[in-house]
Amino acid sequence: MKRNYSVFLGNVGSCLDRYCPAYGREYSVAELFDRVATIPLIRGVDLVASPGILAECETVKSKVKEHGLKVVSIAADTFTQAKWKQGSLSCSDPEVRKQALEHAEEVIALCKEVDCDLLTFWLGQDGYDALFQADYMAEHKFLIDSLTTICKAHPEMTVALEYKIKEPRTHSYVSTVGTTILICQATGCDNCKVIIDYGHALLGYENPAESVALLKQFGDRLCHIHINDNYRLWDDDMIVGTVHTLEYLEFFYWLRRTGYQGWFVIDQFPYREDGRDAVAESAEWLDYLETLVDRADMEEIAEVLKKKDAVAGSKLMRKLLKGN
Amino acid sequence: MKRNYSVFLGNVGSCLDRYCPAYGREYSVAELFDRVATIPLIRGVDLVASPGILAECETVKSKVKEHGLKVVSIAADTFTQAKWKQGSLSCSDPEVRKQALEHAEEVIALCKEVDCDLLTFWLGQDGYDALFQADYMAEHKFLIDSLTTICKAHPEMTVALEYKIKEPRTHSYVSTVGTTILICQATGCDNCKVIIDYGHALLGYENPAESVALLKQFGDRLCHIHINDNYRLWDDDMIVGTVHTLEYLEFFYWLRRTGYQGWFVIDQFPYREDGRDAVAESAEWLDYLETLVDRADMEEIAEVLKKKDAVAGSKLMRKLLKGN
Amino acid sequence: MKRNYSVFLGNVGSCLDRYCPAYGREYSVAELFDRVATIPLIRGVDLVASPGILAECETVKSKVKEHGLKVVSIAADTFTQAKWKQGSLSCSDPEVRKQALEHAEEVIALCKEVDCDLLTFWLGQDGYDALFQADYMAEHKFLIDSLTTICKAHPEMTVALEYKIKEPRTHSYVSTVGTTILICQATGCDNCKVIIDYGHALLGYENPAESVALLKQFGDRLCHIHINDNYRLWDDDMIVGTVHTLEYLEFFYWLRRTGYQGWFVIDQFPYREDGRDAVAESAEWLDYLETLVDRADMEEIAEVLKKKDAVAGSKLMRKLLKGN
Amino acid sequence: MKRNYSVFLGNVGSCLDRYCPAYGREYSVAELFDRVATIPLIRGVDLVASPGILAECETVKSKVKEHGLKVVSIAADTFTQAKWKQGSLSCSDPEVRKQALEHAEEVIALCKEVDCDLLTFWLGQDGYDALFQADYMAEHKFLIDSLTTICKAHPEMTVALEYKIKEPRTHSYVSTVGTTILICQATGCDNCKVIIDYGHALLGYENPAESVALLKQFGDRLCHIHINDNYRLWDDDMIVGTVHTLEYLEFFYWLRRTGYQGWFVIDQFPYREDGRDAVAESAEWLDYLETLVDRADMEEIAEVLKKKDAVAGSKLMRKLLKGN
Repeated sequence: MKRNYSVFLGNVGSCLDRYCPAYGREYSVAELFDRVATIPLIRGVDLVASPGILAECETVKSKVKEHGLKVVSIAADTFTQAKWKQGSLSCSDPEVRKQALEHAEEVIALCKEVDCDLLTFWLGQDGYDALFQADYMAEHKFLIDSLTTICKAHPEMTVALEYKIKEPRTHSYVSTVGTTILICQATGCDNCKVIIDYGHALLGYENPAESVALLKQFGDRLCHIHINDNYRLWDDDMIVGTVHTLEYLEFFYWLRRTGYQGWFVIDQFPYREDGRDAVAESAEWLDYLETLVDRADMEEIAEVLKKKDAVAGSKLMRKLLKGN
Repeated sequence: MKRNYSVFLGNVGSCLDRYCPAYGREYSVAELFDRVATIPLIRGVDLVASPGILAECETVKSKVKEHGLKVVSIAADTFTQAKWKQGSLSCSDPEVRKQALEHAEEVIALCKEVDCDLLTFWLGQDGYDALFQADYMAEHKFLIDSLTTICKAHPEMTVALEYKIKEPRTHSYVSTVGTTILICQATGCDNCKVIIDYGHALLGYENPAESVALLKQFGDRLCHIHINDNYRLWDDDMIVGTVHTLEYLEFFYWLRRTGYQGWFVIDQFPYREDGRDAVAESAEWLDYLETLVDRADMEEIAEVLKKKDAVAGSKLMRKLLKGN
Repeated sequence: MKRNYSVFLGNVGSCLDRYCPAYGREYSVAELFDRVATIPLIRGVDLVASPGILAECETVKSKVKEHGLKVVSIAADTFTQAKWKQGSLSCSDPEVRKQALEHAEEVIALCKEVDCDLLTFWLGQDGYDALFQADYMAEHKFLIDSLTTICKAHPEMTVALEYKIKEPRTHSYVSTVGTTILICQATGCDNCKVIIDYGHALLGYENPAESVALLKQFGDRLCHIHINDNYRLWDDDMIVGTVHTLEYLEFFYWLRRTGYQGWFVIDQFPYREDGRDAVAESAEWLDYLETLVDRADMEEIAEVLKKKDAVAGSKLMRKLLKGN
Repeated sequence: MKRNYSVFLGNVGSCLDRYCPAYGREYSVAELFDRVATIPLIRGVDLVASPGILAECETVKSKVKEHGLKVVSIAADTFTQAKWKQGSLSCSDPEVRKQALEHAEEVIALCKEVDCDLLTFWLGQDGYDALFQADYMAEHKFLIDSLTTICKAHPEMTVALEYKIKEPRTHSYVSTVGTTILICQATGCDNCKVIIDYGHALLGYENPAESVALLKQFGDRLCHIHINDNYRLWDDDMIVGTVHTLEYLEFFYWLRRTGYQGWFVIDQFPYREDGRDAVAESAEWLDYLETLVDRADMEEIAEVLKKKDAVAGSKLMRKLLKGN
């Protein structure tokens, strides 16, 4: 299959965490694009509409043209600024919700500048931390209303929610695959879709392959994939394939079986590594793991799954891994 | 508020686990009822329609009459027998699905004998353990079809799904609150409802109070509550209130706010304790924790929640705990 | 490297769990041995000294002779009977501790009958479930005293502790690699050793490879390995290699580097599979994964580790997996 | 009991996380001290020897004098700067280890300036993230050697390790209570002690009360306590008492029983709250929960624990909570 691999622009730069404000040096937007361009398998970029990016729209336009990169998606920046600390689309303060809607418009304008039709929301600040901290019913409703406003105003755009059960809040509203589908349904809009972040699915004890199936069944809502790896208990955002192996094979199988035609955007936090090199590794792993699935007989896999037999599945996995 | 407390009949008996086949002696059905009757706060029983219970319908009828107990719900036994080991309502084997539907009819017949209108399904064997073991789309569909058949055939019954993210399978199909609501919706039946098992919600990293709100918002589907306690990482099925305290207070608040009028059925596994005494303790805890909420000012709590302030919530929780 | 693979005898039989008392039919001791003998890569058996095994010492002796199997270890049965429900070696009841010591003698006698010098303890019932349930200091001391008694009385035996952070208790005393080494040290006996159960290490968020290194450094106490697989959050006891891949490779590397010469005993719970076939699969996976390490250049791996570079490690892992 | 409550100075300021570099405004060192001084129950401060603090030694001295605060401990800053990204005391680069030892000397000099005899190490960067990334045996040895050097050179100081199983690395070397005691022992120094961070203990699935008992038994090494709260699956660093209740009561009981005379330093991350107010809340909770234990009969608790009975423990906990 064609390798539709992109990367979040910031991933080739440097990281921070709550203890260390800078593990590496800062890079300019132009430098980040130039670094992306050095990675053979990467053909697209995904952006976060941070103030820095919004201010450099012209750089973005010229750099994607220079390097022949596709802008795959742009994420609203509802998580890096203190103003969203009690939520954006769901915030109980109407003024904050208004700002969030204005920001959405601003991002859609940027999308149009760079020929991108996918606006994404990772609502990391929309949720709560403590018990007795939130009026769940009120805030759920605000979230759905805000989202509906955006989706209805822009039928030309795909508007996608990326779910994650926690972090930075201890509890997020857009938490699991099931709840996210319910929220999409509640907008009444077909252009409201869902992103699977592979690591987020694992963090919520989902099997990403089954989540693909659920999204197909309940409204065919999967539109984009964020890819990385972790140890299942936290969103470690590691290099793809450095922890899990077999889960990726099953994931790719179900994506192919359900006809996924979208992109895989590498989305990791290489705190202590060179960002560019870490992304290149993820792309190599993706290509390697997809090659193993390329070699597989899809019919044979379907037959094994019908047996509902862990022993048959075990033999199949070893065969897939051996690649012959 | 009125204390609608019941108990799963088997809870006052003995437990087993995968290592030890019997931690205590066996009790007859009649003995179990007599043990329940000694617990002051318990006014109902919930049953699992195991072969033993099905064979003793007359004992059940006479004992509930003798002790003035309400039969609150009857659970289909889709989890204690090897024939369901690869699923019941979702099983890819049509013969097994047929048997599951027949069993549902058998349980409904028992319900009618004992004046109970709540049939419940905890589909513990419907799911999978290993990667590449299941055809998710096929089995999800079987599950929904089977459930639809039952709900449509019995509009006089409430048919409720109890969700749990794992165990005994490593992955269950009826996994989280969101996915369970989607499954209910897919039946197209209003009599398809949801049970919150308090410990299952914690196991899936749900905040049970928020799950109550979600069930209210997406179709008002909550109809029953299983209650117990655990350490969040496993369904330890401990005595209510022996691990968590504040979560229960928030849970009771949201149940009252959303108008829950149903029962709390104690559902625990006191492996090493006397079952009757462990149930009595849970009832005492429930009553104590509800009393703390009885004393609270519901308007004051609603005001605190609107502030979205963990410090205000912290003060409120200490006040609730002090009970004055 | 030579493949020292054995299996817990019961693993080729049937399983139960807390819901379903029998997923398959019972097998006699003789049948179990005959089933083991059909698995090409298995050359040993490990036993649990249950009443059933103690009663069939002669069968064991004749069957191991018949099939040319080595009895690798015998585990004291301190977990399948209700009498140990509040602990065995650590039990606060002196009569129960006395029985546990007597059972240890009984197991050592069996060991001598079958030419086995490894007595193991998995103290699954020694711990606690609830808060305010146990006098930790008293019970820790009882555990160490009991263990010291056994080790001192039998310098000719290796006495090994298998740690596990929880289950069946919510908290075990012999919990993690570090605490287990401390307990061994406290006996003052060099014949007090440690077993790594691969799945237990994962359950405690240990990296099994680092646990091997710790056991080497703090007294060279590793003497045996139980092998299986899980999803890290519970002791799922699945077929080896059906979840994790790369962790095994690192584990085998560190075992070779630290000079491990012992056995790998397959220890799993194939609830819904044929036990014999599930064990055969685990053996195939072990052989396959060890073959990948056989092909590796140990010096090259050591050089990569010195770099402390996740990118270099990532490249190495892909190379190991490709097996060339 | 006397309330020895202190706070990490930075806790009354603002927080960042990996997404949002500033949730609130910056405060000067002097301002932070003035904010601490407004919290009635706080009588001490704990410092992190960051460049900012090292540069303001005179401010620290004058402010602690002005407000009558005790400097309880000073933590080496081995975690906020990129130079430690691959470890400090354990780093495989000898130059980095040398810098870490020099930093320790610098911190000890500061300790002497402010009359503090407790130097602490939270070795957050000493560990690894990925598989095949580290030479565990070499780095464990470096860690022990560095620590030994410090402890031996400064017998007048208490040198304490704070353990945490993960974060910011996916795996820390100073991980659990057991391994930390082993590391202390390996230095051969009695002045090498252990800190329990309450939330870190929960994160590692320890029962903090049992960890107190273990530290008493294996060398009496507990010297300091960091206090906060979380949901057990991550170091959420929340306000004390806003999640757990009963665990604190058991923790305080065991601290009193084992004769703990040290401090409780509030150590939390109130990302979205006013830091000063969040600390004041933690102090109120600590005082409230300690008051419940003050009212308890220590002999009665000891008697209950001897029964090894979860039902008796349950009754006891409800009694403690009712405070009468």
